[in-house]
Amino acid sequence: MSKQILVVGAGKSSSYLLHYLLGKSGEKDLRLVIADKHPDQLPKAVSDHPRTEIVSLDIARAEARRKAVGASDIVISMLPAALHIDIARDCLEFGKHLVTASYISPQMRELDSEVRKKGLVFMNEIGLDPGIDHMSAMQVIDRIKSRGGKILLFESFTGGLVSPQSDTNLWNYKFTWNPRNVVVAGQGGAAKFKQEGTYKYIPYHKLFRRTEFLEIEGYGTFEAYANRDSLSYREDYGLQDALTLYRGTMRRVGFSRAWNIFVQLGMTDDSYRIENSRGMSYRDFTNLFLPYSPTDSVELKLRHYLKIDQDDIIWGKLLEIHLFDRDRTITLENATPAQILQEILEASWTLGPDDRDMIVMYHKFGYQLDGRKHQLDSNMVVLGENKRLTAMSKTVGLPVAMATLLILEGTYDTPGVQIPKDPGIYEPVLAELAANGIAFREYDVPYLGYNPDSVAS
Amino acid sequence: MSKQILVVGAGKSSSYLLHYLLGKSGEKDLRLVIADKHPDQLPKAVSDHPRTEIVSLDIARAEARRKAVGASDIVISMLPAALHIDIARDCLEFGKHLVTASYISPQMRELDSEVRKKGLVFMNEIGLDPGIDHMSAMQVIDRIKSRGGKILLFESFTGGLVSPQSDTNLWNYKFTWNPRNVVVAGQGGAAKFKQEGTYKYIPYHKLFRRTEFLEIEGYGTFEAYANRDSLSYREDYGLQDALTLYRGTMRRVGFSRAWNIFVQLGMTDDSYRIENSRGMSYRDFTNLFLPYSPTDSVELKLRHYLKIDQDDIIWGKLLEIHLFDRDRTITLENATPAQILQEILEASWTLGPDDRDMIVMYHKFGYQLDGRKHQLDSNMVVLGENKRLTAMSKTVGLPVAMATLLILEGTYDTPGVQIPKDPGIYEPVLAELAANGIAFREYDVPYLGYNPDSVAS
Repeated sequence: MSKQILVVGAGKSSSYLLHYLLGKSGEKDLRLVIADKHPDQLPKAVSDHPRTEIVSLDIARAEARRKAVGASDIVISMLPAALHIDIARDCLEFGKHLVTASYISPQMRELDSEVRKKGLVFMNEIGLDPGIDHMSAMQVIDRIKSRGGKILLFESFTGGLVSPQSDTNLWNYKFTWNPRNVVVAGQGGAAKFKQEGTYKYIPYHKLFRRTEFLEIEGYGTFEAYANRDSLSYREDYGLQDALTLYRGTMRRVGFSRAWNIFVQLGMTDDSYRIENSRGMSYRDFTNLFLPYSPTDSVELKLRHYLKIDQDDIIWGKLLEIHLFDRDRTITLENATPAQILQEILEASWTLGPDDRDMIVMYHKFGYQLDGRKHQLDSNMVVLGENKRLTAMSKTVGLPVAMATLLILEGTYDTPGVQIPKDPGIYEPVLAELAANGIAFREYDVPYLGYNPDSVAS
Repeated sequence: MSKQILVVGAGKSSSYLLHYLLGKSGEKDLRLVIADKHPDQLPKAVSDHPRTEIVSLDIARAEARRKAVGASDIVISMLPAALHIDIARDCLEFGKHLVTASYISPQMRELDSEVRKKGLVFMNEIGLDPGIDHMSAMQVIDRIKSRGGKILLFESFTGGLVSPQSDTNLWNYKFTWNPRNVVVAGQGGAAKFKQEGTYKYIPYHKLFRRTEFLEIEGYGTFEAYANRDSLSYREDYGLQDALTLYRGTMRRVGFSRAWNIFVQLGMTDDSYRIENSRGMSYRDFTNLFLPYSPTDSVELKLRHYLKIDQDDIIWGKLLEIHLFDRDRTITLENATPAQILQEILEASWTLGPDDRDMIVMYHKFGYQLDGRKHQLDSNMVVLGENKRLTAMSKTVGLPVAMATLLILEGTYDTPGVQIPKDPGIYEPVLAELAANGIAFREYDVPYLGYNPDSVAS
């Protein structure tokens, strides 16, 4: 009898997921039930496939949802993270495995002991970031440890960017995922990490000025700013003794320094609303954050306030997004500065139909072995094919699909609410990803750390 | 029969309040009931006064509290703002007037219609700031309007500082009131104000770099940074049409530029806790906010990070508070950066027994009259006598006491939950304050505004 996979939520990020599962559906005798609120947006190749069944489902309706879960052998939830929990409870009740690409919520974690008791696998955080980052890092960490090495340093960076062919603006950036997350990135508290045994904290208004550079062979130089909490996976990864722990977000060089202009002006603030923002010109919006002057221009005031030199390329970046334009106007009413900035940037940074995105990931592992310090760097680059078949949907969707088949077939059966840190899951998924063009390159490099010669500070 | 005044809460700010009321108690046949949780801390001159009765009162105990309110003719609440509401409800029930120096809370405001119905006066915000600022501003605003003038500009500044004789450190500052309020000042959202008809917003991390200077005859130059919301009294003051509205906090020149160092480093952050802060040296605390280096000193890293020149007096200010000291240690455990900074500053900035504080207030009124633009500046300076008889307690306590007598005697009887913006209250209180050495000096100055010649921008 064929196995039934229920996919709940079929948005942007599910194209590769569905394509991969349908590609395996004959060989593995799978049936795919795709449940979505608006299933008419699926491409014909998916909706007309003989092994596909489309269900229009409002997941708030418990009866229909429970019926769909009960009839399946495994469930993939691609819903927004906050909506997984009802599906998860149904899965627990009906004894079904569950796969998501989202962070484990506290509610989800609470189900762990019951999930174990029933021998179920609730695999979470198995997309790109979180997902491929966990698996690729754990593979190297486990390998170093198995050889007797001790991890001193772990740094990990991910970026969702545009591919070199589509890199056509001065910011070297377009929105390839959720623009709001980009605009408010880093807010809500100081960034926390560990360097050579000491904790370090960067306040939001300094975050984009404390970047580090990273080189990827064939792709040039990137920069990275620190994530909010670099210490969150310390225990999961078994890195309690590592002296340096740092996680960051990658951009093309120069992005952060220019983004800092918005931060310094206060344009990324999402905590208050501008009255009567609709119809305000971009220029007047910019002027809200500058001192009043009866004679000086908005341009001169901004240059003076933020000390931007005449010949600084940052200026071109601001002109490119029309920050001083009198004719372009804001359409949002009573919006926060962050919402308005997002509207302004979306007008310039949206992917064109032929634009291709790019995912980059970079890990650094510093370790001690045989009395010496070593460093291994690994990185991955994935290019999208077009606006729909993005590198983002590929790197999020494929590991979810692959893990689903491994769990469905019983190849992986360690029960519990979990992330993919076990070799039983990461080895086969990473191998299958490599076969699909998603692979890491590794480089032995001189140990740099932050204090290679152990100088006493 | 003598009139009974209940004073609930007799902390730091009540010395002048009690002294003033007791001074009038014979002439006006008053009895003073002072209810406090720890009444033993009162000076003997107060507690042994024949017209004083001391009650040990925990205001959480409703029965004792209600009994005390019921037995009085008028109630003064000097409790922290959050604790007024129970007293206010008792006053409403027993038909007693109420006087406080605190901002009107939403709960307090809800009582307004019932308070009016019963013909009661619930006078709030009648201390220094809020209090004297309202009264002194409304007196001038009403005078200008009564002459047919139209207010174009209103700016108002207050500062709690040290008097020139006690101004003995490089910061020209010591804590004279609640240190915590100073450390977290300006946090929680952008500062909002209006200049020449346009709204302006300053994010927290720029707040201390957008100061303006103010001159007070005989006392030199001061600076001021913007308060969170300069527009909150627009309606109360009848300034809906004013083009410029700005409220600020006064410091000695140079304070804000140096304080900005703490802001830039992230030391004023109150949103997260530093693990194991107890025993950490001041130097290690400073280093938490700087990049790691195996060789460079904390001093050099900070100078480089914040671009502090070799000969900048800011550096002396940081040395004076021992920010780089290896031997001075933090005593607070798992404290926020703001709490730790407060501890460090309190070690340097606490008033000595002979230190005197100083209150400064400065208003600017720009107005149009007879086709011309005018400006009137007014300011007030009050010096404290010693560590206990402070200018702060004088300027907070005296208007409360004076208003209490005016209401008790029926001289002022406009009912409702209110602030002192009515001539019926501000005229007699300001006159009595002047008789007690708290007076404003007024200066007609050339209209400066921000666009005196109406240049089109």
